[in-house]
Amino acid sequence: MSPLIDELIKALRVLPGIGPKSAQRCALYLLERQREGGLRLAKALEQAMREVKHCSHCHNLTEQALCSICRDTTRDASLLCVVGTPLDVIAVENSGSYRGYYFVLQGHLSPLDGLGPDEIGIPLLLERLRTGQVRELILATHSTLEGEMTAHYLVDAVSGKGVNVSRLAQGVPMGGELEFLDSRTLAHALQSRTFVPPSAV
Amino acid sequence: MSPLIDELIKALRVLPGIGPKSAQRCALYLLERQREGGLRLAKALEQAMREVKHCSHCHNLTEQALCSICRDTTRDASLLCVVGTPLDVIAVENSGSYRGYYFVLQGHLSPLDGLGPDEIGIPLLLERLRTGQVRELILATHSTLEGEMTAHYLVDAVSGKGVNVSRLAQGVPMGGELEFLDSRTLAHALQSRTFVPPSAV
Repeated sequence: MSPLIDELIKALRVLPGIGPKSAQRCALYLLERQREGGLRLAKALEQAMREVKHCSHCHNLTEQALCSICRDTTRDASLLCVVGTPLDVIAVENSGSYRGYYFVLQGHLSPLDGLGPDEIGIPLLLERLRTGQVRELILATHSTLEGEMTAHYLVDAVSGKGVNVSRLAQGVPMGGELEFLDSRTLAHALQSRTFVPPSAV
Repeated sequence: MSPLIDELIKALRVLPGIGPKSAQRCALYLLERQREGGLRLAKALEQAMREVKHCSHCHNLTEQALCSICRDTTRDASLLCVVGTPLDVIAVENSGSYRGYYFVLQGHLSPLDGLGPDEIGIPLLLERLRTGQVRELILATHSTLEGEMTAHYLVDAVSGKGVNVSRLAQGVPMGGELEFLDSRTLAHALQSRTFVPPSAV
């Protein structure tokens, strides 16, 4: 194609999940059908890449000094939910059942990748706990090796500081069929089975 | 999220195949890991959307007056391949077995969508044939209802003008297994079977 189109196809490949063929298709689709949408995307990208920073309080992404959640004074300041990425904040918010605040780590502990407690922002979290407002720290790190390691590290780091620590329940997902469930999850769900009170039978 | 991030997620949805979840994932991936790639994409989009036009000769996409293929004087000017979109030019070029020129229609005939001969640029193609340079018009429109209709229309429009018209061969794709082939293609491949000369047996 032409230099500008080639450069657009190459640049599109920065997006996760976009391979060479999809990049070609996206580029020509925008050029043939969606010039306005393409220009709007260019502007949105430019602005977001330049202006979005981290919230000084919870380290979530935002272009303001404090993110909209930290600015919301109607939330319960005794609850702090620790997640590994901003995507997880969206996921927990979408569950519609949490009204506390968040702390966003910059990923999970991964010593092999050089990600230790300092790199993922744990000192800032411990600092925040020192104010004494938080009564319960809810660990919502990923259910992966790195996520579990991070959770264990936090349990140790926080013990004896007067903060209750909880962890998201693990088990069979809603709508999940047992035959498709991995055996570790099923083993855990069996071990952690809950008794049903007689009246509910 | 914040206004800028929300706008970025919305703007990303202009890309084909990007739904709400992928747009979220793309936006946060760029913000957290690829600010430079995001800025490069913004610039490439902006430039391409503003500067890419159509080649005055073949109607392919290019930012120059003539596209690189039309500028290439080493090609065979007696061959003209008609395709429905710029993506098809790339596909034919990638086959590595064509050294003629192209004419890019703006889609295929589709009366229900209001796409008649004028809308897809057929008058420009007929104009081009009037120079008398083209000896063979290769129809490489899609093998869909609209593509076939476009091909038939062109056969009629060109008849009696001293131009040979050919059509891409249809049949079993290379590496194709018969059990996965649709029955129309298989019926056509049977009808159009070619005899193998004895020496090749």
